[in-house]
Amino acid sequence: MIDWKTLFITVFCASALLPSVARTQKKPPYESVDVFIGTREMGHTFPGAAIPFGMVQLSPDTGNPPFLKDNMYNPAVYRYCAGYQYDDPTIIGFSHTHFNGTGHSDLGDFLIMPTRRDRPLEPGVVGNPDSGFRSRFSHATERAAPGYYRVRLEDTDIDVELTASSRVGFHKYTFSDNGDSRIILDMIHSIYDYDGKVIWSSIRIENDRLVTGFRQTHGWGRTRYLYFALVFSKPFKRYGYMNNESAPYRGFWDKAMKQKDNFPEMTGRKVRAYFDFDTVAGESICLKLALSAVSTDGARQNLEAEIPHWDFEQTRREARLAWERELGKVEIDAEQSRRTIFYTALYHSLLSPIEYMDHNGRYRGIDQNIHRAEGFTHYTLFSLWDTYRALHPWLTILQPRRAGDMIRSMLAHYEQSVHRILPIWSFHANETWCMIGYHAVPVIVDAFIKGIDGFDAEKAFQAVVDSATHAPYSGLGNYMKIGYVPADGEFGENSASKTVEYAYDDWTISRLARALGRTREAEEFTRRAVNYRNLFDPGTGFIRARTTSGKWTEPFDPLKTSGQGYIEGNAWNYSLHIPQDIRGYIRLLGGDKVFIDRLDSLFRQKLPAESVAGSEDTAGAGMVGGYIHGNEPGHHIPYLYNYAGIPWKTQAIVRRVLAEMYSATPDGIAGNDDTGQMSAWYLFSAMGFYPVCPGSDQYVIGSPCLDRAVIHLENGRKFTMLARNLSAGNIYIQSAEMNGVPLARTYITHEEIIRGGNLVFHMSAKPNRNWASSRGASPYSLSD
Amino acid sequence: MIDWKTLFITVFCASALLPSVARTQKKPPYESVDVFIGTREMGHTFPGAAIPFGMVQLSPDTGNPPFLKDNMYNPAVYRYCAGYQYDDPTIIGFSHTHFNGTGHSDLGDFLIMPTRRDRPLEPGVVGNPDSGFRSRFSHATERAAPGYYRVRLEDTDIDVELTASSRVGFHKYTFSDNGDSRIILDMIHSIYDYDGKVIWSSIRIENDRLVTGFRQTHGWGRTRYLYFALVFSKPFKRYGYMNNESAPYRGFWDKAMKQKDNFPEMTGRKVRAYFDFDTVAGESICLKLALSAVSTDGARQNLEAEIPHWDFEQTRREARLAWERELGKVEIDAEQSRRTIFYTALYHSLLSPIEYMDHNGRYRGIDQNIHRAEGFTHYTLFSLWDTYRALHPWLTILQPRRAGDMIRSMLAHYEQSVHRILPIWSFHANETWCMIGYHAVPVIVDAFIKGIDGFDAEKAFQAVVDSATHAPYSGLGNYMKIGYVPADGEFGENSASKTVEYAYDDWTISRLARALGRTREAEEFTRRAVNYRNLFDPGTGFIRARTTSGKWTEPFDPLKTSGQGYIEGNAWNYSLHIPQDIRGYIRLLGGDKVFIDRLDSLFRQKLPAESVAGSEDTAGAGMVGGYIHGNEPGHHIPYLYNYAGIPWKTQAIVRRVLAEMYSATPDGIAGNDDTGQMSAWYLFSAMGFYPVCPGSDQYVIGSPCLDRAVIHLENGRKFTMLARNLSAGNIYIQSAEMNGVPLARTYITHEEIIRGGNLVFHMSAKPNRNWASSRGASPYSLSD
Repeated sequence: MIDWKTLFITVFCASALLPSVARTQKKPPYESVDVFIGTREMGHTFPGAAIPFGMVQLSPDTGNPPFLKDNMYNPAVYRYCAGYQYDDPTIIGFSHTHFNGTGHSDLGDFLIMPTRRDRPLEPGVVGNPDSGFRSRFSHATERAAPGYYRVRLEDTDIDVELTASSRVGFHKYTFSDNGDSRIILDMIHSIYDYDGKVIWSSIRIENDRLVTGFRQTHGWGRTRYLYFALVFSKPFKRYGYMNNESAPYRGFWDKAMKQKDNFPEMTGRKVRAYFDFDTVAGESICLKLALSAVSTDGARQNLEAEIPHWDFEQTRREARLAWERELGKVEIDAEQSRRTIFYTALYHSLLSPIEYMDHNGRYRGIDQNIHRAEGFTHYTLFSLWDTYRALHPWLTILQPRRAGDMIRSMLAHYEQSVHRILPIWSFHANETWCMIGYHAVPVIVDAFIKGIDGFDAEKAFQAVVDSATHAPYSGLGNYMKIGYVPADGEFGENSASKTVEYAYDDWTISRLARALGRTREAEEFTRRAVNYRNLFDPGTGFIRARTTSGKWTEPFDPLKTSGQGYIEGNAWNYSLHIPQDIRGYIRLLGGDKVFIDRLDSLFRQKLPAESVAGSEDTAGAGMVGGYIHGNEPGHHIPYLYNYAGIPWKTQAIVRRVLAEMYSATPDGIAGNDDTGQMSAWYLFSAMGFYPVCPGSDQYVIGSPCLDRAVIHLENGRKFTMLARNLSAGNIYIQSAEMNGVPLARTYITHEEIIRGGNLVFHMSAKPNRNWASSRGASPYSLSD
Repeated sequence: MIDWKTLFITVFCASALLPSVARTQKKPPYESVDVFIGTREMGHTFPGAAIPFGMVQLSPDTGNPPFLKDNMYNPAVYRYCAGYQYDDPTIIGFSHTHFNGTGHSDLGDFLIMPTRRDRPLEPGVVGNPDSGFRSRFSHATERAAPGYYRVRLEDTDIDVELTASSRVGFHKYTFSDNGDSRIILDMIHSIYDYDGKVIWSSIRIENDRLVTGFRQTHGWGRTRYLYFALVFSKPFKRYGYMNNESAPYRGFWDKAMKQKDNFPEMTGRKVRAYFDFDTVAGESICLKLALSAVSTDGARQNLEAEIPHWDFEQTRREARLAWERELGKVEIDAEQSRRTIFYTALYHSLLSPIEYMDHNGRYRGIDQNIHRAEGFTHYTLFSLWDTYRALHPWLTILQPRRAGDMIRSMLAHYEQSVHRILPIWSFHANETWCMIGYHAVPVIVDAFIKGIDGFDAEKAFQAVVDSATHAPYSGLGNYMKIGYVPADGEFGENSASKTVEYAYDDWTISRLARALGRTREAEEFTRRAVNYRNLFDPGTGFIRARTTSGKWTEPFDPLKTSGQGYIEGNAWNYSLHIPQDIRGYIRLLGGDKVFIDRLDSLFRQKLPAESVAGSEDTAGAGMVGGYIHGNEPGHHIPYLYNYAGIPWKTQAIVRRVLAEMYSATPDGIAGNDDTGQMSAWYLFSAMGFYPVCPGSDQYVIGSPCLDRAVIHLENGRKFTMLARNLSAGNIYIQSAEMNGVPLARTYITHEEIIRGGNLVFHMSAKPNRNWASSRGASPYSLSD
């Protein structure tokens, strides 16, 4: 029986809600992604092949200059966090692991390069590609889409195609000439490389098509193990390796045997293997390389489980389908360049965290023991200082099941950690201790508050409390004693930033404690939530570093980042990092007017060049006045006018950031993508709202830049945002409705999204100063 | 009901068979062991604590001079294969893994040393013990027995006691003074040490008593992993470490935190940790350190499973009971010094191979994957070139169950090896390729022929055939093509030794093939069994190296070892390495007389010093004329007169070797014990017989030096050897009986032993030239 009423509503209303369908010839989501966005300079994205949240992220590396010890931010090296720089003329090869958009790096594991036998068994140098197996290439022959990458290696006339499943990289090399073709497996190559980074590596030639091995590196990840199984579509006729070390193998065999040719074990710190084939013109050789963090046995099983066949196109198709499934969860109307930016941001928001376990559930824990993920998918790669802000909240909407598994993964880390604290910046069974705070805490509480399940709330509570009370961690002992991290104490560096971030994290714990009925902890952490006040200097109105005795550190320069007690931000930005209690800060400052002036000044000011020091992701491009969008601490700041009753100023600044900081070009991200945080900012903001304070259930309203956006939720419902009368100039909200009811507040709730509904904004070129300007319209603040 | 008949026979016959019981006040087996035998100079034994076949062999190390690359036989280093030299004045500490009696080495893992806080955190140098934590000691305070070791560290007034289970070392330290006591865990220390041997090490402080960690070394074992769990009986009050490296931890935490004190993760290549305690005078601190080759989790489980308590004396008692059980399997009558030699040899024969798996059956395979031993105990440490001769045959009698499991372990190695061949010289999931031959083959065939079960004969057959036909291995390709290893081909070094050893190994395969009805292979390997003939030079009567074209290599010096195509033996010795076909060789030589002259000359000749080069285990002491007992290739030679019908000459020479090459003193083994091979030679020969040709079921009769020996077999039966009228001068067999029936042959069979029975020798000072001198009395030869 046809339900005519539903059909009518569906068809009629859908078309009514889709005014732009007819007016642009738009590409579907998958085809709207431009994987090259962010590959030039600061974005630190990579263009290679991966599936959503896949462990294998198989991508060309165009450079890996060695970095020197204690010089992690060597700018020449920093450019290569993702291995690829758009302006480079040559490709070294194709490695299987990459970070998306990080500000420090590692990985680049198991580089493969097809070449010819007459090329040197060295990568060669940038200035002279003929000195090695690297090859010139051109963007003209480069074709890439989510899950697929193609390029022609000009020096050797080899066509390369790459695709991937979660744990397997699939390579297809087509050789133009008859003759001696060679495929190199480089165990030395690494991203953020230095002499000695490879602690050990090993290759076993299992038979004339199957190769297994592993390597251990001591890089950003202190003790990192990765195993592989590599199978060729055709037997190699000869193999061997070079070992750039003097004393490879202590044993007797060595004396007589030329181990470097056709000897099935290759071991050492500097091993580069080759496999030779006779090919005829036009012949393709495929290879599949599976990863495991557990063992070569695990890698072999992953290979068999994921890609048992040799049909490259099938795997490519499956990768595409996986992307279409995920990208299709948000349907938007906008002109194509916006669509490109949006879907590329969506693509980047689905590249990390990554699945980190074998097909059978076994994974390497932070204790370096092998564990089994029982009933969940184990993830790694938590850049939490970046991602607690918007990426994880984004995943609570789009990927609630995965969000729950990510929390289980963090809880496993907590249980396996010798410190018994949650991850800070972790990947591949390593903790890097990078950046500050204990921001797994807001991620977990935010998910709990938003009803994400699949994890044990009591265990989560223990984990967040333990993490927030681990005295040896980064000044926390002093913080707990005197209410702030003193600049002159242990871990006094960045003491002001630490204090405000701890206070925010603590506020989230108070929310969880209250929800679980833990009154004592709720009170304790509510007290700690206002610790930011201990660093408020009434004289300047800034959050400032102070010593144990209570003295403000001098000299004080609110424009400077370095040496002032802040990290990746200055006093202007960090003083606003009180997402849990903006109203409380406004009160300290002296009221709305002072606060608004403060914001106005921030967005208007011109920073002297030397003040930007320590904010390396900006280079000017990522800034609006003194607001640094290229770094995270201020990501919520554009939304703060709402708290002072003038949402139209937020609307203006959000639209400016959306317009200026993102573009559909290789340099289209105005700072490191930071494993998707920059992209998640865009995704939210383009739809008109943003999670200013994860741990609350509110998304604060800005100003959308999409005509329409429909989120297809995992629960089968959908949430639609419609921006009527939107244009480049129509940046102001005149009015809004939620499910047809006028909306006179500057936030919506998570519940309003996931139960499905329609949010309609009416846009105009002129601000409506009355809309949602009352005190009651403002988002949550602790001090309200 | 009392069975009076059995009782009568038991009591009466036993006393009748025990004429010496009353005449000496003898110590029981356990107390007869002197673990210091072999600890001076060449024996390379260690005096520390272990249980039979235990993985933990916890022993003091007195020296570990660094060795230089490509100089494995640096004599100063070679002395320290077992870590301990009897004449050394200081102890560096107590490490948990040692080889017994090897000629190359590794291990020395996880050295622990109790000391005081004011001692340097460096081991210091031999000439100046005060420069480090090493301490002077004296043999006067040293007490050791199987499974127990005690010493007083004089510089710090600390009493050390050690005991062990299979996977756990148990330490007890008693401090004389009040004050700051310190226990060092040295992750750098190693046997056969060199700068860079430790690839990586890691320590986790799990709590204030439990520490876990691991290290990887690149030594003789190319890629060796070992994990530990260490628990103290008392909480430490402070801990920390030094790291002799400039760049330990790439991460941010490092910048501010003094990670070297009380930071629970210690990682690097050169880590030495300390744990501090307040102690009062007379206080004891115990610690238990468990090993695992799998993981720290595995080590923790091993610790809990094996020694869950803190009763040092209980573990010591259990270790003693384990030894009493094994040592009691052979009951002997002899004067005490003989008993000491015999039971110490028995002790040494039970120290390797070692159990190499976790308590739950998981072990690291040669493929570096983790496997589970299903239904058997997995062993490692196979010094097969040494031990196929007598140690493994000895185990087929005394330890048939373990012998079967050792074969299963070797078959697992075969299956996991990328080469698909059996172990050569393997330990701890590493193949060293040390020495020559494929002597796992005779071990397996010998066990099969002798009815050892518990392994799959068909799989074993495949394994021995694959091992004997793996062309890339050590000249085997040429050997298969032309019937010998040519001196000028690949792996031409030691080509004569390789050829005769391959031919012998091949003969054993022919035996197995025949038993399994594999006619084709039986014929093929029977052909290969006489390949030694291809190197027989009729001009000199020696087995000689020859080139591919068939030319003998020149210059030829039958006295010299090095550069002649032999290893650890010269032409005189190696020409007799045809255990499978002594009669065939006699025929080639020209008959018994020439052969007997050859043997007489060998035992009479005086080697010029320069000819001994390459026979480093002798230093004169291990030789009878030109017969080198300190190295293995000749171990069967004393028994060869039997094949020419003059057993009395074998009797004389065997008794001479028994008397001259073994003594109850620290230098009581005339060469490396070679993981028990030297000891097994003694055990057999002292009882009057020896496995000249493993793979046959015969033991060839020599001349016993024990009045009586009773072997209590695993099948519940016993085999008794009685030497009537034995004395230092009465070395000749006048007659013999087996189970009361006159024995007129110079061998007995395995079957005769394991079905139980009595072998009686009647001894005299004069040879009986007629006893067993007929052709039919001679042991097996292929050419018979």
